[in-house]
Formats: sequence, C-alpha cells, structure tokens
Amino acid sequence: MSRIAYVNGRYLPMNAATVHIEDRAHQFADGVYEVCAVAGGAIVDLEPHLVRLARSLGELRIPAPMDERALVQVMHEVVRRNRVGDGILYIQVSRGRAPRNHGFPKNAVPSVVMTARGGWSGDAPGLRDGVKVVSSPDIRWGRCDIKSVSLLPNVLAKQAASEAGAFETWLVDGDGYVTEGSSTNAWLVDGQGRLHTRAISPAILSGVTRLKLLELARTEGMTIVEEPFTVAMAQAAPEAFLTSTSNFVLPVLEIDGHMVGTGQAGPVTRKLQDIYRTYVRSHAEPGR
Amino acid sequence: MSRIAYVNGRYLPMNAATVHIEDRAHQFADGVYEVCAVAGGAIVDLEPHLVRLARSLGELRIPAPMDERALVQVMHEVVRRNRVGDGILYIQVSRGRAPRNHGFPKNAVPSVVMTARGGWSGDAPGLRDGVKVVSSPDIRWGRCDIKSVSLLPNVLAKQAASEAGAFETWLVDGDGYVTEGSSTNAWLVDGQGRLHTRAISPAILSGVTRLKLLELARTEGMTIVEEPFTVAMAQAAPEAFLTSTSNFVLPVLEIDGHMVGTGQAGPVTRKLQDIYRTYVRSHAEPGR
Repeated sequence: MSRIAYVNGRYLPMNAATVHIEDRAHQFADGVYEVCAVAGGAIVDLEPHLVRLARSLGELRIPAPMDERALVQVMHEVVRRNRVGDGILYIQVSRGRAPRNHGFPKNAVPSVVMTARGGWSGDAPGLRDGVKVVSSPDIRWGRCDIKSVSLLPNVLAKQAASEAGAFETWLVDGDGYVTEGSSTNAWLVDGQGRLHTRAISPAILSGVTRLKLLELARTEGMTIVEEPFTVAMAQAAPEAFLTSTSNFVLPVLEIDGHMVGTGQAGPVTRKLQDIYRTYVRSHAEPGR
Repeated sequence: MSRIAYVNGRYLPMNAATVHIEDRAHQFADGVYEVCAVAGGAIVDLEPHLVRLARSLGELRIPAPMDERALVQVMHEVVRRNRVGDGILYIQVSRGRAPRNHGFPKNAVPSVVMTARGGWSGDAPGLRDGVKVVSSPDIRWGRCDIKSVSLLPNVLAKQAASEAGAFETWLVDGDGYVTEGSSTNAWLVDGQGRLHTRAISPAILSGVTRLKLLELARTEGMTIVEEPFTVAMAQAAPEAFLTSTSNFVLPVLEIDGHMVGTGQAGPVTRKLQDIYRTYVRSHAEPGR
C-alpha cells in the first residue's frame, strides 16, 4: 500500500493522511478522482487522465486545484516517494471543506489527495487467464460519465460479484443492454473478429484504457463497433473481455454462469493483452 | 457552526476533526447519515432517526458502530458540548478505513462522526413565509430510500435551485411525477383539503418529518393520499409545501415560475406548520 500520501500541499506518512470531516467528498461525494497506471516509474496515459480529470472537475464546476504543471509534478513526486515501479497512482480532488449545506460553498478551496502503490490488479494470480462476470440492473445515477467518488452503487455491484464468485458485475440498462462494469468497461469479439463496446454517453465512463485500446486496435486494422450489446449477445460471442487502468485487458470466461466461447481466453483477447502490455511498456512518459 | 465534533471515540475541536483519506465515505460515498432536530437541548424524533439509521446501515451491511444506548449517549453529549438549545445534530457512519478496493473490506471498523450546531434552517428570514421551487429530472440512483452520503446529484440539484433564485429543486421521475426535493419531501393540498405526498419506495427517502406529519395530520382528521403527483398538479393545487428535519414545514409559493394558489402560504400549510412546531416543542425527549 501507499506509504506516503500527498494531502493539500503536504507529503504525509499514510497513517497521518487525513481530511477534515466537512470535506465535501466525505459528506456529499462531491469530488472526482483518477487512477493512473505506473510503469517503470512513469505515468501511463498521463495526458488523457489529465484531460478527463479536467472534464470531471469542469462538469461539477470545481475549480482546478492547481495548474496542470504543478499537478503533474506532485503526481510524479508521489510515485517517486512511494518508490513505485509498476503500480497505481490515485488522485482525488474534492470541492473542499465547508460547513455542511448541499449547494456549492462560496469560498471553499479544492482539496487534493494522492497516493501510490506497487502492483497492477490485473497481475493477480489467475486474473490474466480470465475472470467470471455476473450481471445486475444498472441503478447508478444519470451522469456516470463524470468520474466522481459517488461510487456506492459500484461498491455494491463489486461486492455482489465477489459473493457470486465472480470478478465483476456488468450493469444492465433498462433496455437490456450492458452499460459497463462496476469499475471496468465491457467488450465482446464477434464471429467476424470485430470488437464491440458501448459508445460514450452519460451512461458510462470514458475509460482511458478503453480509449487507448480502441486506438491500438484500429492501428492493427481491426474493426470497431461502438454499439451496446446484451448479456445474451456477450454469452453467445466467441470472446468477451473487460478493460480498466488497473487490470488492462482481462478475458471474460463466464457470464452469469454461461461459458463464453471455449471457456478459455480467446486469440483476439490474448492479442489485445499483448498489444496493450507492449504499449504500456514503451509509451509511458517519464519525462513530462 | 459545530465547535466540538465527535470522531471515532474522541471529542475534538472542530478544526482537528478529521478522518483518514481512505475512509470509505471519502473515497466511495460508502456511508450513511442522519440529521436530527434539537429542541430545547432534546433530540426530536429520536426513535425514528435511530430506526432509519439502523435500516440504512443494514441495507448496506455496515455493522452497527456501537450499541444503540452508547450511540444515544454520544448524541446527547455532542449536543451538550456544543451548547445547542434549538438546532441540528449531524451523525455520519461509514464502513470505515480500508485500502482502496470497491468491494467490502474484511476487517474495517465503522467510522462515526457527529457534529451539532444551533439554529433551524427553516427559521431563516423569509423561509417560513414560503419558498420558490424549480423542477428537474431525477437522475439519482435507484436506492434513494437509503440515507447515504452519495449525495452528488442532490448537491447539483440544490445548486441549480439556488442559481434559479429558488430554495429547492423538485426531482421528476421518468413518468413525470415528482419524487421529492434534493433534501426535502414534497406535498400538495388539493381542493378538498386532502394532503398528497408520494408513498415510500426506493425512489424517495422516508423523511422523519414526513412520517411524523402524516401521523399528526391523521390525528387532526385530515385525509392523506399517498400517491405521486406531477409538477402541473402541484402548480394547480391550492397549496403546496415541503418538509425536512431542518426546515420542518415550508410553504411552496411558486413552482417553475407558476404561482401556487394565492402566492401566499395557505391555511392548511399554516395549520400544519403550527401543529408541527407545537409537536416539536412538546415531544422532544430529553430523558432518553
């Protein structure tokens, strides 16, 4: 775990890393976050994470807590102080501390917290070979495109997966289509080798790994279909997988108890895993 | 504002009242809360607040942080140390501190925070005479019956009201019916003097003031219709009002720019204000 945390201008031992009880994130989920992969000490996909963070803040009209250059300096410093080679950097920005009232406070100063730890979740034993997924109705709010800390439904969905012996819950909208997982984007490979994943909308988060994988797959000449699919379509597909910053690309071998394809990671998914890993190794940007 | 806060076993000066950055409420909105009115130093409707808190915790499977008797002792102590006569007691319980992962942590100890301050919001100049309301689509999650700190949509709705010169936003479901306000329950009085308010369901919070007012109104021989209504129905009604713990009963004089009734607080609403105030004064339970 993270040993040193950055909290509002100070680098603190993890045990001393606290925020005020009237921090808006603590009382109202009034904050946003980013999780970045770190590879060889460098931040992977730094630019799209910064763009998305700025967008989330903008949608909630939380002022930028510092200029981008200063923010990036702190990000690198948190990685360095935690001696993270391959791992995860966590950044959270809230609207700040203010006496409890729902509306935006007038003079709050945004609060910034960062931590970093070694290890990618997707490297856990067994995960890379494939995971099980269950499904349940998507009961989240209408602005899942904002990467906010309003994550209680995601918590419940991930817990439900765990109790069902699965890794993830795919959330299903009122029309029967999969939106995304509780912390991952959902994909399938159809019989013609085309990649299907839901188009960006307020119903899903624009995953940085999703975006990058789309770009890499197009470069490889693969065909992308950005349309929603049902659980039944994914169960019947030759391959399915999920993506996230901390898991990269994970094969989905079973959905709601139905085996996907051969029940083993398929060739397209394996190829995408390799392409993405190669990208992560070669394209992290240590210099910024 | 609160001068002394209770945080996990300690009474702290407000400025020193902090929680860990990995508190689940801070990172996942994984916590619940209650706001109790305090009258003459006593906690109003103590019992239904305790029942609702236990229910919220139960729905999220967060263990009770302490037994009820100890909890009530702390509640009274926080009121006492802040020298609150008439005012508000705030209680928040989260799943506790744990390394960041969506699913429930195995060994987290629930975190408890309490504050208290003088003053009822509904006593602010002008509020008791009536407020304006605007409406917007209800984009909250599917479990608004749980009083969780996952309040970001409520924050945005309250802010939108404020920017429109209104006090509250009434949230409207997909069928065109008002669910509730961002922090209040919604009511109308029809031409026959009957009270209308939406029945309890996962779409609304079971307000303690709502419950008590239903009981008091029935005692007065009034007829209750627990059915949803539209914005148009409320605009056309002789009277409309809203209820909450910190505002009690507030007349609604205007909805989306349309005057309600005469544009002044109506007789039924005034009567309910009086009945509820009398109840608060006489039925707070200092002894418990």
